[in-house]
Amino acid sequence: MKKVEEIATNKVKINDRFWGRYLEVVRNHVIPYQWEALNDRLPDTSPSHAIENFRIAAGESSGEYYGMVFQDSDIAKWLEAVAYSLENEPNEELEKTADEVIALLGRAQDENGYLNTYYTVKEPNNRWTNIRDNHELYCAGHLIEAAVAYYQATGKKQFLDIMCKYADHIDSVFGPEEDKLKGYPGHQEIELALVKLYDVTGQEKYLNLSKYFIDERGKQPHYFDMEKERRKETKPFWFNDDYAYHQAHKPVREQKEAVGHAVRATYMYTAMTDLALKTKDESLKKACEELWNNVTQKQMYVTAGIGSMEFGESFSFNYDLPNDLSYTETCASIALVFWANRMLQLEANNKYADVMELALYNGTISGMDLDGKKFFYVNPLEVLPEASDKRKDKKHVKSVRQKWFGCACCPPNLARLIASIGHYIYSQKEKELFVHLYMGSETNIQIANNQVKLVQQTNYPWDGNVSMIVSPEKEETFTMALRIPGWAKGTVVKLNGEIVDHFPLMKNGYVYINRRWKENDHIELSFPMVAERIQSNPQVRHNVGKVAIQRGPVVYCLEQVDNGENLHGIILPRDAELKAEYDPELLEGVVRITGEAERLDQSNWNSELYRPVEDSTTKVQLKAIPYYAWCNREPGEMIVWMNEKR
Amino acid sequence: MKKVEEIATNKVKINDRFWGRYLEVVRNHVIPYQWEALNDRLPDTSPSHAIENFRIAAGESSGEYYGMVFQDSDIAKWLEAVAYSLENEPNEELEKTADEVIALLGRAQDENGYLNTYYTVKEPNNRWTNIRDNHELYCAGHLIEAAVAYYQATGKKQFLDIMCKYADHIDSVFGPEEDKLKGYPGHQEIELALVKLYDVTGQEKYLNLSKYFIDERGKQPHYFDMEKERRKETKPFWFNDDYAYHQAHKPVREQKEAVGHAVRATYMYTAMTDLALKTKDESLKKACEELWNNVTQKQMYVTAGIGSMEFGESFSFNYDLPNDLSYTETCASIALVFWANRMLQLEANNKYADVMELALYNGTISGMDLDGKKFFYVNPLEVLPEASDKRKDKKHVKSVRQKWFGCACCPPNLARLIASIGHYIYSQKEKELFVHLYMGSETNIQIANNQVKLVQQTNYPWDGNVSMIVSPEKEETFTMALRIPGWAKGTVVKLNGEIVDHFPLMKNGYVYINRRWKENDHIELSFPMVAERIQSNPQVRHNVGKVAIQRGPVVYCLEQVDNGENLHGIILPRDAELKAEYDPELLEGVVRITGEAERLDQSNWNSELYRPVEDSTTKVQLKAIPYYAWCNREPGEMIVWMNEKR
Repeated sequence: MKKVEEIATNKVKINDRFWGRYLEVVRNHVIPYQWEALNDRLPDTSPSHAIENFRIAAGESSGEYYGMVFQDSDIAKWLEAVAYSLENEPNEELEKTADEVIALLGRAQDENGYLNTYYTVKEPNNRWTNIRDNHELYCAGHLIEAAVAYYQATGKKQFLDIMCKYADHIDSVFGPEEDKLKGYPGHQEIELALVKLYDVTGQEKYLNLSKYFIDERGKQPHYFDMEKERRKETKPFWFNDDYAYHQAHKPVREQKEAVGHAVRATYMYTAMTDLALKTKDESLKKACEELWNNVTQKQMYVTAGIGSMEFGESFSFNYDLPNDLSYTETCASIALVFWANRMLQLEANNKYADVMELALYNGTISGMDLDGKKFFYVNPLEVLPEASDKRKDKKHVKSVRQKWFGCACCPPNLARLIASIGHYIYSQKEKELFVHLYMGSETNIQIANNQVKLVQQTNYPWDGNVSMIVSPEKEETFTMALRIPGWAKGTVVKLNGEIVDHFPLMKNGYVYINRRWKENDHIELSFPMVAERIQSNPQVRHNVGKVAIQRGPVVYCLEQVDNGENLHGIILPRDAELKAEYDPELLEGVVRITGEAERLDQSNWNSELYRPVEDSTTKVQLKAIPYYAWCNREPGEMIVWMNEKR
Repeated sequence: MKKVEEIATNKVKINDRFWGRYLEVVRNHVIPYQWEALNDRLPDTSPSHAIENFRIAAGESSGEYYGMVFQDSDIAKWLEAVAYSLENEPNEELEKTADEVIALLGRAQDENGYLNTYYTVKEPNNRWTNIRDNHELYCAGHLIEAAVAYYQATGKKQFLDIMCKYADHIDSVFGPEEDKLKGYPGHQEIELALVKLYDVTGQEKYLNLSKYFIDERGKQPHYFDMEKERRKETKPFWFNDDYAYHQAHKPVREQKEAVGHAVRATYMYTAMTDLALKTKDESLKKACEELWNNVTQKQMYVTAGIGSMEFGESFSFNYDLPNDLSYTETCASIALVFWANRMLQLEANNKYADVMELALYNGTISGMDLDGKKFFYVNPLEVLPEASDKRKDKKHVKSVRQKWFGCACCPPNLARLIASIGHYIYSQKEKELFVHLYMGSETNIQIANNQVKLVQQTNYPWDGNVSMIVSPEKEETFTMALRIPGWAKGTVVKLNGEIVDHFPLMKNGYVYINRRWKENDHIELSFPMVAERIQSNPQVRHNVGKVAIQRGPVVYCLEQVDNGENLHGIILPRDAELKAEYDPELLEGVVRITGEAERLDQSNWNSELYRPVEDSTTKVQLKAIPYYAWCNREPGEMIVWMNEKR
């Protein structure tokens, strides 16, 4: 089996205005802050105990295990974020801290390779007895991902060795052989991690184990039932007694609609896509495509949020996208970025890159404030603080970001995503070089025996002009495949100053320019960025008569601080001009959108609650800001979908 | 204290086409069906055990108590419905059955008067130890109401005597005296019942006990806390540790907004209004008026449903009226009828009668199918069956009526309301005779020393013409005060064929005609009934851009069976004519409303979920039916508020 070539990702240097700021925030605030959290040094937040759990497991501290059953994964995600951060900017002290943590992990590891503090400290005799609920394989997956990233960033092998040893142990526990468990994780994650481990080690056993977990899933008799019986557990599974929660209700190739816990689902789809690519499995590829279409065409919010139901943090059903009840977990949008990235490897199609970009500029980073100090777990599209306070069915919709969570999955997940942003820009297939994202950056890419330097400059997402210098060491024939975003109308492509008639070169939203490239070849792209009114498919009952505003990849929202309370009373006439202006003072610099709108007039209502129709509106100035940046000023109401007048 | 004169209600004979049919259904189906239920003779429904509990309490059967802690109240409501039914139409066999049940109640009663099967059978030593949760006083209240009704209907005193004995016992347990408990019920109900008991017995102690329960409520130190301490209960109260659930968070006169469990609240407001009237308590009257305004101007659905939150079956907050999450319990709308009826005694104002009528024609009877065989507990204003099936936050919204409930409060409550409908038509204040409702009926009313026969004929609510013959035995000067509904525009009032210029005679929505009435005086009222588009106060965020259709007192809805699926895609142009036609074949005869509308066109959408705005609709015929009658044909989607195009 041929391994797909990969960009040496540590060579992408981000100097983008937008993402550079985020990287700095992650480096200077999020990573240090989370380090404090992991060490229980944050005042006014519930302790993490994650480091302490490892100390106890290593026999270097006494005390009880504390935290969620998946507390280890917080360490893993932090280490992974550190790895990417070191890739971007070396930091001796941080690397030393990470090395110490890694050494601690090594000391906490069992001789046989096992490494999970919950079971080692708390239930040493119950390992692998409840993989449905207890996240052993999930934590292993995150640690593997971190080890791979750390190896790629630093070249150091210690962490990778620890995790190979653990992976080998897992491989000795699970598999088709008679003496092994026929199980698979309740929270998918290790499947995609094992593919990464295969990528860096070249060891097929890791790919095979990943494939085993995926292929075994949902078979009858059901492993979760057998395991449950062994535990003598009798009560029905809490999620309507339905393993759809775990996407284990049927074999993965038979799954046509996204169901259950959105993060588990999307991590699984990511691994399925990896496997479809690496094992050339057409049936798996087909399943991935069908699931992709289901998620993005029937179950995704306009912000690239997924998971419309709090119960089970899950998908609900097609076109069910309530704006005020959504779960839309930060981690789920992050997972969608992972999946889109893998789909792009399967097939370069802007429909995948568009969703990846949408998630990056909206539903993921909305999970963090601009300072990197507070976080949303749930990213709703409509917030009325009083409803969050007073309605139990909206309790999960927080109206302000929180400092740290007892279940702290989202903050470190976001940190690792942002720190690795450079990994999502390019991909390569032999002599085709794909550009999926546009952001200020520099990198060197190996094509044949030639080093090609790529330099992007842009003010993206605030304007749509991108300048790209392509500089091979020596002249070389290859293809630059440039993504034209689906939202861009009237794109202009220039090569060395000359307009390129790019339509004949387009395939699935990418412009393929094959030529003999030479030093300082200059590509210019111009994507007109227009504040567009977006409407939903008529099947989405929640958005009839409403529009959202999107400009380029950025979705907008209205906040009370700009528009007063009762945001639902604002009505945007179809013909009102929308003005987009960059405001360097606003929210660390954003393009804001203003326009003349109307507002339902309360003044000619007396106390009545209902009356025969009679319209009355007043003129108001509407001001919209990027969705991701909401709740960085005075807290209050927020809406994405606003009422429209045609 | 002067007792308010009352109509001898058993003299109102209903021969109305609309209500006559409902009375027949209650008589022929609901009462016999519920009798079977109370005796556990219904197949496929969970047993009630209510009669059996009394047998066990009486020592005539062995076995365990079974059912809710308030199971006794099902018997009470059934007996009350039977009483009203006998008032309408004597039925020897039914009366004999009721007498037997009453005798059983007597045998189950303790020597000291105590009568509650749960405590007698199950926890004889724990009486009155948890009046917050355990409904002893609630059950007593329902039994008192039934006893009063049965006495008024049949003149028989046995039941009344049983309940006076119990009430005397309760009076010996609760009260300001040192040796008595300073408590009050967690579920209000007995307060309004004690006023009724006072009305028929003239015994002031019952009025005083009711007043005590109301006045004591919400005082500090809090009785529920003291009682809880005595029980050694330590966990916080489940409703956010907030006695607002019971309207016991502060003294009743300080309550300005309706909060907590909607039925408890409204039963309490009813009793408060009774007491304000009967004790001429101005501060209580003011509280009632403020609470009335809050409920009807800020927390009531257009169907007169109340309670917008499933958690606690409760009010949420002002203008929070989600159509798809509402609780809007049948019992809560019934309670609103009770309250409106009492507010009308305090002050004749059509704002009270309008709400009473709205509840009667919409949010109450929607709780039962046309055959009286199936029931809704929750009366939502928007139903998508798939959402009810798949979303946990909408599980309480049933998309079809159920046969019987484990907690069977609503069906017998509705039975007693319908059976007593005649009680809500008239009221009298000395020589003023108020007509609040219009329905085909006959009655004789005593004015001074004169018998006045009143005969109404009407096709209400399908047309707005009412003919009323006023026939005093001998000529007499008195006032007929005729309600002009708030929705009626251009009403014509005629007296003996001559148009009356009624505007100078109007006060608070009633036309006061004072004259010397003689035999066969003929009043004709004509209320133009127009299919009106109704809009919500701009503060109601859920209904912006939407209208409901109301014609006379009847609110309409769209059902899938008439309009296809995806009802949210129907858009009613502001200028589309709405045609109202009586269809005798439809739903036992209703006026249906049709009009030309538009429907979002799916055909020019491909698979995308979002796209820049671009309109496309097709013309469709809209067909609306009365809300109360929904779900009597093919089950499916239903909406009350539909999208509008201006």
